[in-house]
Amino acid sequence: MAFMSQAEPRRGPLLVVGGSEAKEPGAPILGTLVALAGGTDARIALIPTASRDAAGKERLYGDLFRGMGVRHVTCLPIESREEANREDFVQAVYDSTAVFLTGGDQNRISALLGGTEVAKAMHRANKTGLVVAGTSAGASAISEHMIAEGGTGLHPRKHMLHLAPGLGLLRRVVVDQHFLQRQRLGRLLSIVAQNPFVLGIGVDEDTAVLVEQDYRMQVIGSGMVTILDGRELAESNVLTAEPGALLAMGNVRMHMLPAGWTYNIETRTLLGAFPLPPSARASDTGEILAHPGP
Amino acid sequence: MAFMSQAEPRRGPLLVVGGSEAKEPGAPILGTLVALAGGTDARIALIPTASRDAAGKERLYGDLFRGMGVRHVTCLPIESREEANREDFVQAVYDSTAVFLTGGDQNRISALLGGTEVAKAMHRANKTGLVVAGTSAGASAISEHMIAEGGTGLHPRKHMLHLAPGLGLLRRVVVDQHFLQRQRLGRLLSIVAQNPFVLGIGVDEDTAVLVEQDYRMQVIGSGMVTILDGRELAESNVLTAEPGALLAMGNVRMHMLPAGWTYNIETRTLLGAFPLPPSARASDTGEILAHPGP
Repeated sequence: MAFMSQAEPRRGPLLVVGGSEAKEPGAPILGTLVALAGGTDARIALIPTASRDAAGKERLYGDLFRGMGVRHVTCLPIESREEANREDFVQAVYDSTAVFLTGGDQNRISALLGGTEVAKAMHRANKTGLVVAGTSAGASAISEHMIAEGGTGLHPRKHMLHLAPGLGLLRRVVVDQHFLQRQRLGRLLSIVAQNPFVLGIGVDEDTAVLVEQDYRMQVIGSGMVTILDGRELAESNVLTAEPGALLAMGNVRMHMLPAGWTYNIETRTLLGAFPLPPSARASDTGEILAHPGP
Repeated sequence: MAFMSQAEPRRGPLLVVGGSEAKEPGAPILGTLVALAGGTDARIALIPTASRDAAGKERLYGDLFRGMGVRHVTCLPIESREEANREDFVQAVYDSTAVFLTGGDQNRISALLGGTEVAKAMHRANKTGLVVAGTSAGASAISEHMIAEGGTGLHPRKHMLHLAPGLGLLRRVVVDQHFLQRQRLGRLLSIVAQNPFVLGIGVDEDTAVLVEQDYRMQVIGSGMVTILDGRELAESNVLTAEPGALLAMGNVRMHMLPAGWTYNIETRTLLGAFPLPPSARASDTGEILAHPGP
């Protein structure tokens, strides 16, 4: 396996967390992140850019990961685009086995990190094994199309949200977080109505989607992941409705999946209720620990 | 048309209202009921059995319908199974063009009316043209499988509700009401998980489903109707989950339809956004006014 991984580098998994993940030792989501990143040998870089309290996030997650036995936790307190081009921060990304984007405001991530050297390093390193994880705002920013802000409620309405380009690590997907708790079904449906090409993935609090390099995903945590597939969407009123009007959505294929269920994002097929094969669990093999610099 | 209707009696439409329908003159839902029942020539029988305040419901809807020009509004204040077998009440059903079941507790409708002569008269008269309408509890009781009581929330959980047999005027369907406002997506999904044979229809407040004899339905009112079709449902954990556990639901076909959208309940196909043909509007033709006694 180690030989294979050198011949053909494996893309690192993405861990997309819906926010408010359990923080106690042994909690499944952060435990999965640590395991994916190499267990006690993990080297985790915190990027608290979404938050205006970077020091608080550094303390919170630094203590948590160290408490879980991780020896190397570093923080990249990026507060400006200039800092997001700093060579030492770029190198820190390449030196890490996982990058963790904290919560806050996803617009800070896209505006301050988008297109910078740190963002490029995350992309490049992810291609050869870096784990990229994000919670809440950090989860939203991982996908190609990012919900910048939006309304709440179960019903889709025209123009109930604003999209912005995200970091683009997860393509053809829009991620929403705090999904159940903040009543976000409507706004995710409204994006699918606008372009059924994108798959809507709503992640509850204390719940995560682990996406492997082959676009298989598995649900982790105590809540559910709601997947909205608009491939078969009937013609709707999205082109004619007034802003704020209810959008008719016919033939939405919906999946609501609790922990353990797996799905293929690329083929849009439900795989079933079984754990992903060991390839997703890098800590078992050490494969993802080797990724070269740029 | 009148000749045709005598040769081959038309089944009366069903009007399934999600509760809290607008009460002002000209409001679309109650206006549709009056139009279906014959306009000013309508003969509407109120059945306030779901409520413990029959006199209050009689006053409320009696005044409303009379205010809309209906000359004949009668009330059948059925408070016991004995009263539900009274000959004058049975005759009143046959003498009416529409029966209206008010809100309250749907268990009172099923327990007090189920299997009685009044219920049989409603079935028989509906087959030859009687309009049957129900709001809130009255809407729930119209379908074959009735939600007797249940939990709230967006996520389906095992055993989160209790079903009871309803009046059975609308078959192969479970109706839920106050759908958006009381967060009932989860419980309706959980029924579909238990037997995808039934179609889940969730009706918002101030919203109604008008079902024609050929099982085409149209949405009326200010909210939406959510249709949950489990025909293609993936194998779930419904058989193995513990009571209260989250139910995995893969491949649910969902439709969220605002006013004007039509759907065929029998073939489970979305028809589009156009009004039903005049056959649904009995007041135009007078057809449904002629239905014989038992």
